[in-house]
Amino acid sequence: MIDAKEVARHNTSSSCWVIIHNIVYDVTDFLSSHPGGVKAILSLAGQDATEEYDPIHPPGTLEESLEESQILGPVDPSTITTITPMPSLTSLSPEKDKSKNDIPPLEEQLNLDDFAITAEKVLSPKAWAYYFSASDDLLTKQHNNTAYQQILLRPRIFKDVRDVDTRTTICSSPVAFPVFVCPAAMARLAHPSGEAGIAEACGREGVLQCVSNNASLKPEQIMASRVSDKQPAWAQLYVQEDRRKSEALLKRVDALGFTAVVLTLDVPAPGKREADERVKNSVNTASATPSEGIQGKDKGLGRALFAGTTPSLTWEDLKWLRKHTKLPIILKGLQTHEDASMAARREVLELGVTGIILSNHGGRAADTAPPPVYILMEIRKHAPEVFDKLEVYVDGGIRRGTDVVKALCLGAKAVGIGRSALFGLSGYGVDGVRRVLTILREEIETTMRLLGVYSLEELGLEHINTRALDQLIYQEPQGLSGGIIKAKL
Amino acid sequence: MIDAKEVARHNTSSSCWVIIHNIVYDVTDFLSSHPGGVKAILSLAGQDATEEYDPIHPPGTLEESLEESQILGPVDPSTITTITPMPSLTSLSPEKDKSKNDIPPLEEQLNLDDFAITAEKVLSPKAWAYYFSASDDLLTKQHNNTAYQQILLRPRIFKDVRDVDTRTTICSSPVAFPVFVCPAAMARLAHPSGEAGIAEACGREGVLQCVSNNASLKPEQIMASRVSDKQPAWAQLYVQEDRRKSEALLKRVDALGFTAVVLTLDVPAPGKREADERVKNSVNTASATPSEGIQGKDKGLGRALFAGTTPSLTWEDLKWLRKHTKLPIILKGLQTHEDASMAARREVLELGVTGIILSNHGGRAADTAPPPVYILMEIRKHAPEVFDKLEVYVDGGIRRGTDVVKALCLGAKAVGIGRSALFGLSGYGVDGVRRVLTILREEIETTMRLLGVYSLEELGLEHINTRALDQLIYQEPQGLSGGIIKAKL
Amino acid sequence: MIDAKEVARHNTSSSCWVIIHNIVYDVTDFLSSHPGGVKAILSLAGQDATEEYDPIHPPGTLEESLEESQILGPVDPSTITTITPMPSLTSLSPEKDKSKNDIPPLEEQLNLDDFAITAEKVLSPKAWAYYFSASDDLLTKQHNNTAYQQILLRPRIFKDVRDVDTRTTICSSPVAFPVFVCPAAMARLAHPSGEAGIAEACGREGVLQCVSNNASLKPEQIMASRVSDKQPAWAQLYVQEDRRKSEALLKRVDALGFTAVVLTLDVPAPGKREADERVKNSVNTASATPSEGIQGKDKGLGRALFAGTTPSLTWEDLKWLRKHTKLPIILKGLQTHEDASMAARREVLELGVTGIILSNHGGRAADTAPPPVYILMEIRKHAPEVFDKLEVYVDGGIRRGTDVVKALCLGAKAVGIGRSALFGLSGYGVDGVRRVLTILREEIETTMRLLGVYSLEELGLEHINTRALDQLIYQEPQGLSGGIIKAKL
Amino acid sequence: MIDAKEVARHNTSSSCWVIIHNIVYDVTDFLSSHPGGVKAILSLAGQDATEEYDPIHPPGTLEESLEESQILGPVDPSTITTITPMPSLTSLSPEKDKSKNDIPPLEEQLNLDDFAITAEKVLSPKAWAYYFSASDDLLTKQHNNTAYQQILLRPRIFKDVRDVDTRTTICSSPVAFPVFVCPAAMARLAHPSGEAGIAEACGREGVLQCVSNNASLKPEQIMASRVSDKQPAWAQLYVQEDRRKSEALLKRVDALGFTAVVLTLDVPAPGKREADERVKNSVNTASATPSEGIQGKDKGLGRALFAGTTPSLTWEDLKWLRKHTKLPIILKGLQTHEDASMAARREVLELGVTGIILSNHGGRAADTAPPPVYILMEIRKHAPEVFDKLEVYVDGGIRRGTDVVKALCLGAKAVGIGRSALFGLSGYGVDGVRRVLTILREEIETTMRLLGVYSLEELGLEHINTRALDQLIYQEPQGLSGGIIKAKL
Repeated sequence: MIDAKEVARHNTSSSCWVIIHNIVYDVTDFLSSHPGGVKAILSLAGQDATEEYDPIHPPGTLEESLEESQILGPVDPSTITTITPMPSLTSLSPEKDKSKNDIPPLEEQLNLDDFAITAEKVLSPKAWAYYFSASDDLLTKQHNNTAYQQILLRPRIFKDVRDVDTRTTICSSPVAFPVFVCPAAMARLAHPSGEAGIAEACGREGVLQCVSNNASLKPEQIMASRVSDKQPAWAQLYVQEDRRKSEALLKRVDALGFTAVVLTLDVPAPGKREADERVKNSVNTASATPSEGIQGKDKGLGRALFAGTTPSLTWEDLKWLRKHTKLPIILKGLQTHEDASMAARREVLELGVTGIILSNHGGRAADTAPPPVYILMEIRKHAPEVFDKLEVYVDGGIRRGTDVVKALCLGAKAVGIGRSALFGLSGYGVDGVRRVLTILREEIETTMRLLGVYSLEELGLEHINTRALDQLIYQEPQGLSGGIIKAKL
Repeated sequence: MIDAKEVARHNTSSSCWVIIHNIVYDVTDFLSSHPGGVKAILSLAGQDATEEYDPIHPPGTLEESLEESQILGPVDPSTITTITPMPSLTSLSPEKDKSKNDIPPLEEQLNLDDFAITAEKVLSPKAWAYYFSASDDLLTKQHNNTAYQQILLRPRIFKDVRDVDTRTTICSSPVAFPVFVCPAAMARLAHPSGEAGIAEACGREGVLQCVSNNASLKPEQIMASRVSDKQPAWAQLYVQEDRRKSEALLKRVDALGFTAVVLTLDVPAPGKREADERVKNSVNTASATPSEGIQGKDKGLGRALFAGTTPSLTWEDLKWLRKHTKLPIILKGLQTHEDASMAARREVLELGVTGIILSNHGGRAADTAPPPVYILMEIRKHAPEVFDKLEVYVDGGIRRGTDVVKALCLGAKAVGIGRSALFGLSGYGVDGVRRVLTILREEIETTMRLLGVYSLEELGLEHINTRALDQLIYQEPQGLSGGIIKAKL
Repeated sequence: MIDAKEVARHNTSSSCWVIIHNIVYDVTDFLSSHPGGVKAILSLAGQDATEEYDPIHPPGTLEESLEESQILGPVDPSTITTITPMPSLTSLSPEKDKSKNDIPPLEEQLNLDDFAITAEKVLSPKAWAYYFSASDDLLTKQHNNTAYQQILLRPRIFKDVRDVDTRTTICSSPVAFPVFVCPAAMARLAHPSGEAGIAEACGREGVLQCVSNNASLKPEQIMASRVSDKQPAWAQLYVQEDRRKSEALLKRVDALGFTAVVLTLDVPAPGKREADERVKNSVNTASATPSEGIQGKDKGLGRALFAGTTPSLTWEDLKWLRKHTKLPIILKGLQTHEDASMAARREVLELGVTGIILSNHGGRAADTAPPPVYILMEIRKHAPEVFDKLEVYVDGGIRRGTDVVKALCLGAKAVGIGRSALFGLSGYGVDGVRRVLTILREEIETTMRLLGVYSLEELGLEHINTRALDQLIYQEPQGLSGGIIKAKL
Repeated sequence: MIDAKEVARHNTSSSCWVIIHNIVYDVTDFLSSHPGGVKAILSLAGQDATEEYDPIHPPGTLEESLEESQILGPVDPSTITTITPMPSLTSLSPEKDKSKNDIPPLEEQLNLDDFAITAEKVLSPKAWAYYFSASDDLLTKQHNNTAYQQILLRPRIFKDVRDVDTRTTICSSPVAFPVFVCPAAMARLAHPSGEAGIAEACGREGVLQCVSNNASLKPEQIMASRVSDKQPAWAQLYVQEDRRKSEALLKRVDALGFTAVVLTLDVPAPGKREADERVKNSVNTASATPSEGIQGKDKGLGRALFAGTTPSLTWEDLKWLRKHTKLPIILKGLQTHEDASMAARREVLELGVTGIILSNHGGRAADTAPPPVYILMEIRKHAPEVFDKLEVYVDGGIRRGTDVVKALCLGAKAVGIGRSALFGLSGYGVDGVRRVLTILREEIETTMRLLGVYSLEELGLEHINTRALDQLIYQEPQGLSGGIIKAKL
């Protein structure tokens, strides 16, 4: 048993100890390789870091990075003045906890925006900033949220809509309705049940979850929370600089019963999420050197998570990926009709690519990147054959069942939600995510009834009026040859 | 005479009594079939429910649903502590009543918006929420209110406009000007004179009323309030799951002297009116079960009224309707040129359809459904022959005489107002509705004079500039065959 | 000498006396023919009405309407408790007078908006409402104010702009720059110098004034305030129901040296100016009868001024006008290319029509009428030959020298300002109007220099980019024959 | 040694002395030729004017304008009550100085807007007004700031973006990234290091500075602050009425090692910057004469700086310029495709013109002049060959790295920033400017990575979607001959 006062002495980069869940670790040698930066650890050196560590690292993360000798043993509880509670909503400050009593009953959350309002009350400023933030001036995020509203519906009359059927399949898995949960990272910032809670909610509501590569729980824990072994789940992949790490992950993914691999391509470099950076900055201490002033400091949680990801993938890397997984491959982050066409080439399909997710990473990659509905319309305009060769999914900006139906009318097979699932989790855990999904399903059903359609297959271009957006969709400039498709596989 | 204390003991679902207008009713067996839900009654079990019951049920509604033995007899007045007053503006809370003294003199209400402002002061929160609410994010309601403003007028000079004539006919009935009152439900939430008050006002101002299928007075009472037997009136029909109920209503409609039947088609399922739901929720108690949390609770007055309506009408049902009425049939709720064309088919006309109302149900059906003026322009663009075969009416978003004139320029025969009539009624009863109509008529006359036209027949496309909207009107996507018209009668 | 107490007894419609400038008048017989309504007088019956009467009636107005016997003679000053001061800024309430001390020095008024802000402080609520108000929802007024801003300038470089010349001629009169003051009524509500003050300011700055038919001074007084006999001035004409009144006016106009007659055609009926009506209502007493509640009451100063104007002019009436004046005729209020074409017909030109003013009456006629710049562009698009046959002027919404230059690039010969002249007058009298004109001239000069032009003749379509408006300009709907031009002269 | 009390007596236009840096000057004869106006000096007559004089005049300015006999000698320090400190942030009021302590640490300035917010806190009202102000209603400034946001990016996937290279050349000088600092005047209003501080920052960050013709330091001082002799710098030229002054300047420019001359053409006359004028007015005393009221008073610092500039340059003057410099010539302020085409004529190129800067002078010339990105698109549309013959630069409205990248996609070679550099300087001196540049460079790198390009040469029209702006770009009106190009060289 180690005396906490002894731990407190090791609070510099020369000797840095931390306590996590009552175990003392010597992280001195690990400091420089910490993906989240040296400072993040040093600011907790010599102290109990459980509260900070816990919600953003899957269990065992630290152990995997240390030698056995660096795990120093249990702290003597009698020497600690304050004890960190076991996993719970620890990231909430006391003020926030109080407001938690004021959050509305779950049944009074009537739409997805209600959940965002509640989440802002419940979450710590850091978690809120991480979830809510997007790149630069939030222009793409704003576009995501409003683009669907520019499309008008065309309801038909005298249709028998007693029974409407929202069921479909996504990548061969049957689902209750065409919505899936996107790979949003760090779910335990929202609620201790984290990604596992989302898994259970998805199972109960019959939808599919894509598990983040940066989940705050191990994939084993998340998959164990499924309602049944048949519950479909996708595994997100950020390819690491050290390919062996990614290959190891793919092995676990295969073994755990995931049903597809989602290769994420929309952030070859992290976007600039200033709200995230500001919170981070306000927590840390002032910069010491002038050069730090000029260069800036900590770039926020979003950039820290990116550490280690390779920025140099090309189409050729699909061959490597195929070698290391037997699962269907889905490409996430396409934003142009050119890339959609390239993904629909025979040689790409033969490598096992079965679908693409049109996504601007929730407005967190390039600001002023197009909203997904623009990309859908661009493919519809310039490369409609893509819809015959690949399942096309979209994510970003879904707030209403009408949004989902409009995406389907344009050719999408299903639609992903990200922040909304996290916001549902924030206030209410598993039940919150279920209610988010229930609201969307009911809104989809209502929209289908009011349009006069009874099955998703019926939905088509004749059910929407896209004139307000038509003139904004990319048109190849005159003189640009069609020679865009030149990247070899 | 029954002791009120005895009534108070029957306050559960096993034995549920209520007092209405000093009569005690045993509604235990009726509970489960109440269209408005069990809870709405249970929250008043054992009590005097007159205040809640009265403004939303036509007299005799309850008696029709009960056996004679369930009407238990008069309560002993001496045993009641508080007595509900006879029909009056009972839904107003005391605070509201006070503010009522502050409402402006009628002659200072200068336009329709003024009446909305006053109504918000006068009405109970529940009534205001029911009237004001629309679907989802109110986008369609917003479009309704602003679309007419995008159209510019083209005034001509050197025209003799000493005498302008606003008279016309609607479905063969002569009217003073081309405005009618839409079938808005629950008018007694606004004022005790309810739909009867609107009938009297319409008679005095020479316009036509369409009586709601969900009126808070019996059609007999409403028709009796007409100024003369020749005053035209339309009967709205929501076809019920139990067709015999609708057939019985049609018989009464024929007998009472209605001049047309308006078959409502724009809400095969109720829209999601969240303001309405929120008020309802705030009144009721908290949900007991977790599943109720996930599924949500009470869906508001708007959805309650929908209970019993069939969602499975098709064009074939027009034959059934024709069998049960001799009156002209008007189809309400068309929102596409395709359906307008289908309504103009010879076989439909032969079944007695004489007109169509382009309507998105005041923004209360599908959100992002097009505003009526878009539909008018779409028919003008894709199916102009419809205007020769059917009278085309529009409702939704009329705030000004200029709006009415613009609709007429585009080919509408007349224009309906809904909320404005209720708002006029709210603050001022019959006189308020009359002033609403007078304002519209005077604004129409002014607009005609300033345009340089003396009769409605003169109005045409040359009097408006629709360029701001032209590019937003639906254009059939390339590759969509014209094979839309496939529904057989 | 009449005792004021005696006057006070004649305060009903049976016997109604008023004191104006210390003279007692018996207006009992005149009551019913007062263009401003009975009530306006009755509310002052038995009292000194000078303060109300003075700023809106040219001197002698009342004398002209009464028999000699109805002019009863001077009041005994010793019997009056309060004496109305001689003409001054009497319409200002004391509170307003105080704030007058706070108005900024004239040289700190840097643009036309500054004058509007100051005017709102200085003017009585009634005067402000009358000047500021426009029809219905002020949509056309808003369009007027913003349409010019949608047009971009196209500055050229390497032009010698040392000397720029803003001089031109308007209807053969040389002017210092292409701006004139529109016929705005009731200038004495702004300042006791009234329209005479405007005349002096125009003379000093070398621009032209069009004198309102409803001026608050006699045309003789206004013309006498000109800086020289050669100072050009136009006379506005509203043709009266009683043509002899108009013929009499035309005779005075000829005799006084006016240089043209401006026949106003844009308000065959008064628009609905609600701000104006609201002020009026708030001053008067409550309505007595229910019908008054339904019909509304006083319609404001704007409508009162309209009383007596004929609503039935046609092109034929130009012959009558020609018979009664030798002056050039300018038609004011054209709003379509069709009417511009009709005005440019040979038979119209032969009657002495030399120019047209494109105008929507400052947004006070039909709301959603097009802003003048749209009309300019419509004529440019559909009937460009009009610019060769007539001088085309515009008014409405001019706030900047750039606005003036843009109108000229589109083909206008000159541009009118209305409210701005009154607002300049409000705070500062003659000097204020001069500064308004100076600001505009300097802004025009700066714009010319920055565009790289040295004379007005150089300005053309190549100096502006109108793309933002191009798609909003009226396009004749397909199927509409060109047969619009059918009105015979 | 002169007694300060003696100085105080010379405080009129008959005898006017001022103290600057403890030296007494007799400026009586100079008064009338002061470019900033008589009043600016008279308001300081008899006093110590150091604080007012210093930040807007390069050292020695006054000495150059006076005879030796007018430099009267040092003031006796013991006779002065308050002594002006030596050069420092003297233009800050005490209140401002305090707030200076509250400005955020440099590393928390995350984007260019942050610097503007801080600058408003730090700067004196006069300096803020001078920097921030633009013409008239700031419409062009607003366009500048938002036009880039209307263009969407088109990110490509599967591109190796490990190494991105932002290096390029501008006018043959190698730079670290394609941004330069525009010739913004009066930098010492922001910080005592003034333009010299900007020079050092540009050197450290590897970018180019264009030195203002109206710098508050001598060009010798600015050039001496460069990091190395090879650091490129351009010299701005406003041609003076007195050409000899400009010729003298050109000689110094050649001698000092400037690498190009930037001939500024966008303000042949000063625009109307009202914020600047208002501050100036509020400082000065009230106007004495009525005519001053009508004509307005002091026109602000922006106009004062313009004094002496010639308004009559033509293409012919390029020959004069060529005669007096051997440096490459860059034309600043082109705003039309016509002028771009004229600049690309062989005879112009032969005179040494190598580049053009598309600029509306930061919104300070003609209001409603087009934003630079419109001009880029106009040239791309009507005269694309210009990009082959000249380097095309743009300035105005750059707030983000995405803005820079979009300009480059459209064909720009580099992009200038003006206010941002001054705002960086305001709060933080040299380091602030460096951080502004660092932020831009990092944002450019991130944008390149997210677009999937590794070098600037790759950027092209296929990386942006300009549809939202396409319809706003100038289109030659039908009937306008192509005969625009008629100015002879």
